[in-house]
Amino acid sequence: MDLPPLVDHHCHGVMDTDPTPEEFASCLTESAEPPAPGADFADSQLGFALRRWCPPVLGLEPHCPYGDYLAGRGALGPAESGRRLLAAAGIGTFLVDTGLPGTGPGSYGGGTEREVVRLERLAEEVARTAADARGFTQALGEAIAAKSRTAVGFKSIAAYRHGLDFNPAPPAAGEVRGAAARWLDAGAGRLTDPVLLRHLLWSAVRTGLPLQLHTGFGDPDLALRRCDPLLLTDFVRAVHPTGTPLVLLHGYPYHRSAGYLAHVFPHVYADVGLALSHTGARAEAVLAEMLELTPFGKLLFSTDAYALAELYVVGAELFRTALGRLLRRWTDDGDWAAADADRVAYLLAAGNARRVYRLSP
Amino acid sequence: MDLPPLVDHHCHGVMDTDPTPEEFASCLTESAEPPAPGADFADSQLGFALRRWCPPVLGLEPHCPYGDYLAGRGALGPAESGRRLLAAAGIGTFLVDTGLPGTGPGSYGGGTEREVVRLERLAEEVARTAADARGFTQALGEAIAAKSRTAVGFKSIAAYRHGLDFNPAPPAAGEVRGAAARWLDAGAGRLTDPVLLRHLLWSAVRTGLPLQLHTGFGDPDLALRRCDPLLLTDFVRAVHPTGTPLVLLHGYPYHRSAGYLAHVFPHVYADVGLALSHTGARAEAVLAEMLELTPFGKLLFSTDAYALAELYVVGAELFRTALGRLLRRWTDDGDWAAADADRVAYLLAAGNARRVYRLSP
Amino acid sequence: MDLPPLVDHHCHGVMDTDPTPEEFASCLTESAEPPAPGADFADSQLGFALRRWCPPVLGLEPHCPYGDYLAGRGALGPAESGRRLLAAAGIGTFLVDTGLPGTGPGSYGGGTEREVVRLERLAEEVARTAADARGFTQALGEAIAAKSRTAVGFKSIAAYRHGLDFNPAPPAAGEVRGAAARWLDAGAGRLTDPVLLRHLLWSAVRTGLPLQLHTGFGDPDLALRRCDPLLLTDFVRAVHPTGTPLVLLHGYPYHRSAGYLAHVFPHVYADVGLALSHTGARAEAVLAEMLELTPFGKLLFSTDAYALAELYVVGAELFRTALGRLLRRWTDDGDWAAADADRVAYLLAAGNARRVYRLSP
Repeated sequence: MDLPPLVDHHCHGVMDTDPTPEEFASCLTESAEPPAPGADFADSQLGFALRRWCPPVLGLEPHCPYGDYLAGRGALGPAESGRRLLAAAGIGTFLVDTGLPGTGPGSYGGGTEREVVRLERLAEEVARTAADARGFTQALGEAIAAKSRTAVGFKSIAAYRHGLDFNPAPPAAGEVRGAAARWLDAGAGRLTDPVLLRHLLWSAVRTGLPLQLHTGFGDPDLALRRCDPLLLTDFVRAVHPTGTPLVLLHGYPYHRSAGYLAHVFPHVYADVGLALSHTGARAEAVLAEMLELTPFGKLLFSTDAYALAELYVVGAELFRTALGRLLRRWTDDGDWAAADADRVAYLLAAGNARRVYRLSP
Repeated sequence: MDLPPLVDHHCHGVMDTDPTPEEFASCLTESAEPPAPGADFADSQLGFALRRWCPPVLGLEPHCPYGDYLAGRGALGPAESGRRLLAAAGIGTFLVDTGLPGTGPGSYGGGTEREVVRLERLAEEVARTAADARGFTQALGEAIAAKSRTAVGFKSIAAYRHGLDFNPAPPAAGEVRGAAARWLDAGAGRLTDPVLLRHLLWSAVRTGLPLQLHTGFGDPDLALRRCDPLLLTDFVRAVHPTGTPLVLLHGYPYHRSAGYLAHVFPHVYADVGLALSHTGARAEAVLAEMLELTPFGKLLFSTDAYALAELYVVGAELFRTALGRLLRRWTDDGDWAAADADRVAYLLAAGNARRVYRLSP
Repeated sequence: MDLPPLVDHHCHGVMDTDPTPEEFASCLTESAEPPAPGADFADSQLGFALRRWCPPVLGLEPHCPYGDYLAGRGALGPAESGRRLLAAAGIGTFLVDTGLPGTGPGSYGGGTEREVVRLERLAEEVARTAADARGFTQALGEAIAAKSRTAVGFKSIAAYRHGLDFNPAPPAAGEVRGAAARWLDAGAGRLTDPVLLRHLLWSAVRTGLPLQLHTGFGDPDLALRRCDPLLLTDFVRAVHPTGTPLVLLHGYPYHRSAGYLAHVFPHVYADVGLALSHTGARAEAVLAEMLELTPFGKLLFSTDAYALAELYVVGAELFRTALGRLLRRWTDDGDWAAADADRVAYLLAAGNARRVYRLSP
């Protein structure tokens, strides 16, 4: 299996300072707290995958002790270790969700970057200088229009801020202004108002650019039961006439349901993201589940990497390894033809993302 | 593993005209729309499984290009290709849901046919000649009684028409007449009234014949979250005293929950159906999940094939291959005895269906 | 893989009389009824696993016919067969839920026993001698305090008695007394009142001892959809400040969601229990799914064995075999280091339970 440079259609910025061991460990989990006694975050599939793939990139033995790895990384410094890791990841294009802090991964020398705009963050920024609700909605509309001319897509974290069980219809203009007024009056903090979240979603849908939606697991801010992608079914139906692509991120443990939506609705796509990085040695099994109902022209690769350059390597290597093993088994067993396997590998690695996000070749 | 001719306990009729490429492709998906750009329906597990199993039956190379396959099929014509494909499927008995158009697969020379009556279709037919609600309910009762003397079972698609979250109790006669009157007044179109759907279910239950219920995924008419077989739990409890067998079809991605219901309730059975055909190279994994909690005397084979003779071949071959691989691994590992594996293979292939539907040997 | 004697952190007592064939078979299922015709309970993954592992312990051939096994067992008698089976299980410590009848497995000579107190049973016992609601709540408080000095943990079957969709907040004292009064007036039968169930949960939480919660499948007393561990999310959040460990039992088919909760909340642990015994040859696959998100310091071994000494053997052997195969594959493939695999095997087999339940080494 000969893969092109990957298109990582969903990732974040890199921390450009040297992390403490605690900061490093906190990037290996979705937990927001210190670990329980005896349950270090590094003792996880992601921790073991990192120790398998990253030490060799920095000249160390695979699976070397965590402390040795951190020492080696510290000796190189964040710039040099970042440069080596990003180069090793084999990613040619990064679609970066700029809603979290960090340096763009492309600036480490490894690839092209394009922006994906996090809607809730954009609204919170716009609110800082808005005089009133009318001014806010107008400025927000202009900001979204401006971004749609330079970015390749939008992203919503309504799953975190409310859950996916929101009213699927676009809110009326009056409702939006009322909700904006209440939110601004309350200080325009973390945006959780469902009317405004829906307004953001529909504003993005109207641009026609692909809209990424977080679904499935994430940090404990969210209530996982309310992140089942099937909760989006009526929203998906409502968006259908616009033709705007919806890209369902992560999905785990409801990833088979995300695949179902991609199967039956032409404008829905699915992603392997977070689910591969966090399941490590099980990435092959999880990817295989995604490849049950998801049409092969509709599954996209991403790392969801954030802060640690290591996470690009882990996400990319797990994807390549898992896909390689699956396709080898299916072709060895005669279930798939080798030429089909190569073609599907290309689609997942880069082709589907290039088409959906209209990236120039 | 030496399997007898299969009993396909849930399938449909075959289209006896030559399909256009678009018609053919539309049979490879549960989507009801044209495919997204770059996401052909044939680029799917089902599409690849078809290209693996069907070309050799028509004298072509496995995995030959789709266009070559369609040309070869067209040259033979629907009758001859249908005859060859049905013969290759190795199915001895077809229990045909006659609620969809198409020619019975048995008429291609390959096996015995028995009828499974689709309740909603029967009601819609009866409504066409009903003078009023009372006449409708009486004629419906007579039609169900008549069918129960010739058919081997009934089938409900309440999952599509309402969802499985219906009131589990039988509706009162007055309620049924009221709902029937409203439906007839409105033109007796597509039957979606929950009172009438429940009346159909309970009318079928009272005959004592096995009742098939669609659960899990299907085309976008349904809301998948409302097709979780566990939503039937109270209905299952309510039906229990009657002893009428309930057969849960498909179930994916909730198939493990269908297996649970078959495990704890004596009158519940489960099915592999649609889930194997659409998951192709993953059929072994999905079948294995069904074989976790489902008692081995309670899992039934079906293809859910419709329109294309190819779908009988794909369903049957995927089932045989998946089951063979699983049983070989379990016996090789010493987990199962070879004699047990042979016995269970017979049950799944034919024995369970023969017992549940009281088919003569 | 060299495992220490296992800590079975969740099991029950052993029946010390000779079971009839029907009694024996009824222990192989979660069904509460006679089997359907042709669907013997022994024709299941658990039945086959028992025939694989137990006959050799009693001097018979693996997979010998069920009748031969029962005859051999009967000839030895319950005491001798129990002694041999418990010795073969390789379990060093049993944490016994004393809420069901039966002789402690440790009394067969095979290991140490500690008590886990079933809350609902304790309340039902206290109610028998309570004069009134005030007397009941006081005596219950004293009983829980007394048990907390000798037992290693508590267990709740609120999943069976109500479902996990209960109000997460501790009930007020007045509410508890009112509910207790109503329950006592009604005869203090099977405790299903949600206020009292919540009072039991919170009373246990306040002791600081680990609290086991049944989640996922079980006998048909429960409604499986209401046993999704994610329904506990708000209760988990509410318990968090106390630091009391919550141990989610079984979980199947929602075990991945149990792993998610263990991943994001420091005080949550998960268990393989019932899910391995009932899935037999599939135990490796189910254990692998548990090892996706669950931190390796947070997964505990249990058999959930009850009544039959065989079930300790089956639970232990399936766990050892499944874990051994998984770790061998992951180390052979280079995904895990051998030293890590050994360390994780120790944690799952004994280390995590020793730490969580503060067992002396």
